[in-house]
Amino acid sequence: MIIGVVQMACSGNSDENLAGAVGKVEEAANNGAQIICLPELFRSQYFCQKEDAALFDLSESVPGPSTKVLSQIAITHGVTILASVFERRTAGVYHNSLAVLDERGEIAGLYRKMHIPDDPAYYEKFYFTPGDLGFQAIKTPHAIVGPLICWDQWYPEAARMTSLQGAEILFYPTAIGWHPKEKSEEGQAQREAWMTIQRSHAIANGVFVVAVNRVGHEAPAGGDGLEFWGSSFVCDPFGVVLAQASVDQEETLLVDIDLKRIEEVRRNWPFLRDRRIDAYEGMTKRFLDDEV
Amino acid sequence: MIIGVVQMACSGNSDENLAGAVGKVEEAANNGAQIICLPELFRSQYFCQKEDAALFDLSESVPGPSTKVLSQIAITHGVTILASVFERRTAGVYHNSLAVLDERGEIAGLYRKMHIPDDPAYYEKFYFTPGDLGFQAIKTPHAIVGPLICWDQWYPEAARMTSLQGAEILFYPTAIGWHPKEKSEEGQAQREAWMTIQRSHAIANGVFVVAVNRVGHEAPAGGDGLEFWGSSFVCDPFGVVLAQASVDQEETLLVDIDLKRIEEVRRNWPFLRDRRIDAYEGMTKRFLDDEV
Repeated sequence: MIIGVVQMACSGNSDENLAGAVGKVEEAANNGAQIICLPELFRSQYFCQKEDAALFDLSESVPGPSTKVLSQIAITHGVTILASVFERRTAGVYHNSLAVLDERGEIAGLYRKMHIPDDPAYYEKFYFTPGDLGFQAIKTPHAIVGPLICWDQWYPEAARMTSLQGAEILFYPTAIGWHPKEKSEEGQAQREAWMTIQRSHAIANGVFVVAVNRVGHEAPAGGDGLEFWGSSFVCDPFGVVLAQASVDQEETLLVDIDLKRIEEVRRNWPFLRDRRIDAYEGMTKRFLDDEV
Repeated sequence: MIIGVVQMACSGNSDENLAGAVGKVEEAANNGAQIICLPELFRSQYFCQKEDAALFDLSESVPGPSTKVLSQIAITHGVTILASVFERRTAGVYHNSLAVLDERGEIAGLYRKMHIPDDPAYYEKFYFTPGDLGFQAIKTPHAIVGPLICWDQWYPEAARMTSLQGAEILFYPTAIGWHPKEKSEEGQAQREAWMTIQRSHAIANGVFVVAVNRVGHEAPAGGDGLEFWGSSFVCDPFGVVLAQASVDQEETLLVDIDLKRIEEVRRNWPFLRDRRIDAYEGMTKRFLDDEV
């Protein structure tokens, strides 16, 4: 089966971004992709660079305008689409969500980002209520997909909980980039850490991992902004990178994967067999102060 | 502070291996190392390539001959030594253990390998009772060390549980190698996966990671044996590899690390802040069949 990974740049024009996304999804479908993933919050520039209550205007319901348009594309082309949405659930409750749209045009599953960052230029705790739907594995015609979003990628627990529900492919739509001032000194280590930890989730769990980032330099007035580092990639259940996009160009990866590889890797590296589930209770604690 | 990483080959002569280890530890101490780690089961060749009850003769008590000799070295040089021991606890109960010997010559902590593999040529479930002392962080004069062993390195839970107790440096004494027949096709991916997942533990937890492997081709009569791939390394709390040994030579890495780097990395990448401890209960389950 073929995964379509849409690495795109996002403008300040929401309709233009949706139209661009639709065009890229259709092109990927025409080229054989069966499950297609868009980047995190592709309908806008990454607005979390500042805290501004007016920007909640960018949110929409689920189902809503974005999922309706993309569901139609899913039906027309018979594909599954993973669509990131800035979800307005009610006044004052907004989520960073990922809708899995199946080939019947239905919402096969909705995931709400569980781990919310808050760091300079990534002020997400202001905008997004932490997800309350838990980690999920969602059956689609082509694979059981594990929807996760950006900051989730740094948490082995998120990958594990999703994989233990049977997910075969973890998807991480993402908006991550360099602070221009840090790029020369820290940039390489940051991008490398981002790849390393996501590949490790593939290895630990014996699943495919798909990371889908945006590209472009988005600088709000007066700020240095963020240089999104692209580098979208797909790796196999042993962490082998099958394909990777550039750091600064829009491009769509079409990656042929064989889900049977999961069984093969897990038979030879049977990590799930030996988990010490009797000894992991502390995982649900913030810090184990009493133990040291 | 300086970490000493002793990558060595092991012969069939137990006394020779101990003498060799002592020499290398003393040399590392003389060169400034303050915490020194030996490879897994360094007193023998990797006997788990076959199941033979007579090989339990290789086991010893803790405290016992190995820890006594190395404790004396720890006192003489004022260093901490992490010494892997095939521990005989009683008839029929043997562990793959790691003793942390402090500069007073005392056993500051004892860890018993929690995750036990069993795969062709790694028949450890025959020899080792799974550890019953849990994951630990052990205070030593120079750092809080997290003792873990080989197969543990594939488990994010082990790294997390150890780090949540305050460990600053995770140590993974190891005996891992290539099946000669697989090496040309799979060897690179295997060694790469092994590095990737250990580096990911550093990143996820903001801790240093030290992996200490053996070298050499050990082939029991009539078998292809295993080619241990060395590659011992130290990485920083963002997964940056600070030093790495070769795949086939004995060598001792002396790696200068600054524990203040932990605070620096964790402030800028505050993963521990955002863990969704309300949603990790499933981590203590084998598989979440009911959820899909």
